Amino acid sequence: MIAPEHLRGMPASPGLADGPIFVLAEMFADERAAGTPEDERAALKGAIAEASTGIADLMGQSGEEGAAILEFQLAMLEDDALAEPAYEMIAAGASALAGWRAAMDAQITGFETADDDYFRARAADLADIRDRVTAILTGSAAQTVPPGSVVAGEDITPSRFLQTDWSRGGAIVLGDGSPSSHVAILARARGVPMVTGIGKADFASHRRALVDGGTGNVVLSPDGEAEARYRERCRIDAAQRHLAEAHLLKPAVLADGERVQVMVNIAAPEDVDAIDIASCDGVGLMRSEFLFHGETALPDEKAQYLAYRKVLEWASGKPVTIRTLDAGGDKPVQGLTVEEANPFLGLRGIRLSLTRPDVFKSQLRALARAAVYGDLKVMLPMVTVPEEIDEAARLLDGCLAELIGEGVPAKRPQLGIMIEVPAVAILPERFARAAFFSIGSNDLSQYVTAAARDSSAVARLNTAGDPAVLHLIAHVAGEAKRLGIPLSLCGDAGSDPVLLPALLSAGLRTLSVAPTALGRVKSAISQIRP
Amino acid sequence: MIAPEHLRGMPASPGLADGPIFVLAEMFADERAAGTPEDERAALKGAIAEASTGIADLMGQSGEEGAAILEFQLAMLEDDALAEPAYEMIAAGASALAGWRAAMDAQITGFETADDDYFRARAADLADIRDRVTAILTGSAAQTVPPGSVVAGEDITPSRFLQTDWSRGGAIVLGDGSPSSHVAILARARGVPMVTGIGKADFASHRRALVDGGTGNVVLSPDGEAEARYRERCRIDAAQRHLAEAHLLKPAVLADGERVQVMVNIAAPEDVDAIDIASCDGVGLMRSEFLFHGETALPDEKAQYLAYRKVLEWASGKPVTIRTLDAGGDKPVQGLTVEEANPFLGLRGIRLSLTRPDVFKSQLRALARAAVYGDLKVMLPMVTVPEEIDEAARLLDGCLAELIGEGVPAKRPQLGIMIEVPAVAILPERFARAAFFSIGSNDLSQYVTAAARDSSAVARLNTAGDPAVLHLIAHVAGEAKRLGIPLSLCGDAGSDPVLLPALLSAGLRTLSVAPTALGRVKSAISQIRP
Repeated sequence: MIAPEHLRGMPASPGLADGPIFVLAEMFADERAAGTPEDERAALKGAIAEASTGIADLMGQSGEEGAAILEFQLAMLEDDALAEPAYEMIAAGASALAGWRAAMDAQITGFETADDDYFRARAADLADIRDRVTAILTGSAAQTVPPGSVVAGEDITPSRFLQTDWSRGGAIVLGDGSPSSHVAILARARGVPMVTGIGKADFASHRRALVDGGTGNVVLSPDGEAEARYRERCRIDAAQRHLAEAHLLKPAVLADGERVQVMVNIAAPEDVDAIDIASCDGVGLMRSEFLFHGETALPDEKAQYLAYRKVLEWASGKPVTIRTLDAGGDKPVQGLTVEEANPFLGLRGIRLSLTRPDVFKSQLRALARAAVYGDLKVMLPMVTVPEEIDEAARLLDGCLAELIGEGVPAKRPQLGIMIEVPAVAILPERFARAAFFSIGSNDLSQYVTAAARDSSAVARLNTAGDPAVLHLIAHVAGEAKRLGIPLSLCGDAGSDPVLLPALLSAGLRTLSVAPTALGRVKSAISQIRP
Repeated sequence: MIAPEHLRGMPASPGLADGPIFVLAEMFADERAAGTPEDERAALKGAIAEASTGIADLMGQSGEEGAAILEFQLAMLEDDALAEPAYEMIAAGASALAGWRAAMDAQITGFETADDDYFRARAADLADIRDRVTAILTGSAAQTVPPGSVVAGEDITPSRFLQTDWSRGGAIVLGDGSPSSHVAILARARGVPMVTGIGKADFASHRRALVDGGTGNVVLSPDGEAEARYRERCRIDAAQRHLAEAHLLKPAVLADGERVQVMVNIAAPEDVDAIDIASCDGVGLMRSEFLFHGETALPDEKAQYLAYRKVLEWASGKPVTIRTLDAGGDKPVQGLTVEEANPFLGLRGIRLSLTRPDVFKSQLRALARAAVYGDLKVMLPMVTVPEEIDEAARLLDGCLAELIGEGVPAKRPQLGIMIEVPAVAILPERFARAAFFSIGSNDLSQYVTAAARDSSAVARLNTAGDPAVLHLIAHVAGEAKRLGIPLSLCGDAGSDPVLLPALLSAGLRTLSVAPTALGRVKSAISQIRP
């Protein structure tokens, strides 16, 4: 029998799991020992063939547009010229992986610096091809995670998370990573328990793990004692879940009966299909980034309009807050964002939108058209100076005038801002021209503590529980009340049971949380007497 | 005659210059059109031979340790196996530059991921070789800037700046870049006029430029009118310089006679050789990073001790504030810092030092030994939580006990902190255990405005003049007074004539500025009535 190993990491997504361990292969680690040039040549040839078959299979399952992209990739991959430089390097002694990546990188650079738009856009396809073959060479592609597994490794990509079937349970345990990463946000949204920052652990010598995402405790090869403690936690958890379910469809009220608005954060219009509008007070944050991903071209006005309208119609008159494109930071968008040394401190959110009025105006037109179908509020991310609001308002008014001129039904939505840059949280009165404020506690915390939300090395410092962050939130709440500006909070702090009492004591009465957290947050609110 | 072109950029370093334009070649742009495989092969062969000759020349001028490193690089470069994969790629159609970089990148990755420390350390040598040959291939190595030139281009590296002879005037005009970059800091320290963020300009069609680093105005091919305005500015500038010189050796006093302490920022112990100690009230910031640069190994305790002692002896009893290693951010140190997606929000300053107690303790021991020779204050950079001060104090006390045990003369220096992370500036009372505070206005501004100090895309937002930054500085000044904690400011805001009145009104009475700004700042202070 293997001795149990007790690990403690950072809680990234609550919930309990008991399952077989599935160890993730490192995406880019060259785990294979390099063989003779002949072996390496054969390995690369095999990987390319396997990637081609994989793409061909995928084409059958994809829509028309997806299939067209894949067809192009397939043609590239089947062209012998593509891999020729890699084979030359292999003949000169490089490993299959090193040769492939160096050769592809050189070609991608060539495409990226081309004068022609078409060739520049093809760089992303080449990168996709490079990564597919790399994954096969390193053995990470063959891995399909069996449902219910405790997935363990150094880190996990968002696309890997999305490819995995979590419907039959399971959990994520990472050596690295951070509770503020996008994967952690996805895990909380889907209710997948997750623990990050476990450090170096020899997952491969164990077969089964118990995971408590709420405390960050993980036990590998549990013994009877660990087992008993886990069962007890499951009983308490079930009781809390029953309580949360009981609260789900009721309005949120504090222990003294005061009403609290609890709204939901969503990422894609399809998200609302699984949410009963009666369970929430509207949408506090709809991210519009999803529309700008996985596409070769930027989405047009019509596609955006239909997506926004779907959510407004679902909301049946309750407010829907849609954030304008928050590209940049850790969310690059092809054809829009630029490479930066510190993307979190760079050209992102409203800063980027204002440099690309063509893209921004098509979003504003779509929003003004959708506004006819409900109570729409438009929220600008990363505002730093008041002039950014003025400039956005001018563009919005221009779009409205255009639409009216064209005879297209449209309405001016309210224009508010995220409070996530410290400069705004310190002096909110300078931004009183905004129709509403919404505190983005995740970004606010990372700037106030100068600690990136996706870095495990500084994750300990990055917390909305830092006294300075809570102080600023309370300051914003006081100022918003004084100025008569509606205020909400749409970061993860709003569903953190430890921080919730402090937020309500600070005066916040509107929160926007992940759909899976709705019942739990309402149940917690009912026990708070601020 | 060419028509004059008036450009306006961001003032990065004050001063006036009139000189011939020298256009910088882009370091990594592939300007050469790729020729036939034979041409490209010959180009790479020639570049490697030229790099070898260059290294051999440099060896004669370098010290013993430098020569040893160069000898190793020369041996690598003369080994035919090094470039073989590049030649293979060229034969397959790649350009000399693409082939060379892809092949070298692959090998560098191999070295970087090696298990053996020795091989990992060699990755940096390979990168140096890669860049030398790249510079020759792109034509940027052949460029020697004639003294007195107005150097114009997209951006300029710190090493390029340091290789240029500025003793006979000259200036820098950049299409990109930011007034907060390290090159701008160097330019201000050396008194080289500099303007950044000019945008796209066709420098190559002009021969002469007038530069006003104080206003950001640049005139290419000036006409009589521009010329006359420039001469007038020169007269005013000369009068101001006379005033500054008259103030240089006098104590700084406000218009009402109140004394202000003006100290200097220095980077290397040699910097003090050119400064009359009578012209300043001591050293407000000595950066210790210089000791950790350009070396293959981290500096030992003795080398650090001698450097610190030199400055303390020069100061003749006036206070000397030495900042512990502020590696990370935009200052990587080989063998110490890690690659990060957002280095400014990462493992830097005290965060990094506390993860490497071996390196940190050798610095603390050197500081405790040097403290015997004057009034030493030790300053911790990037403090975010009070526990970091406690941990550093424990390590310092441990070093002191060790030194006493060994019979080595030592003294406990005062332990203070930089205030540059917003969390500290918002609630300074939580950090009252520090012996002193020093506001780092450059980093504080970048975090409060969430705009990186080295990004031209967001340079407009990054300013200590942002009302929220000034509000925080005034708050810290008030709190420091209330708590009885000595306070200074050591960022660029202290020598900005526009911000100076606001800083003094906020209550600051100790500033630390670049040595070249001493007289100017004292002269400006004498006219302020806060």
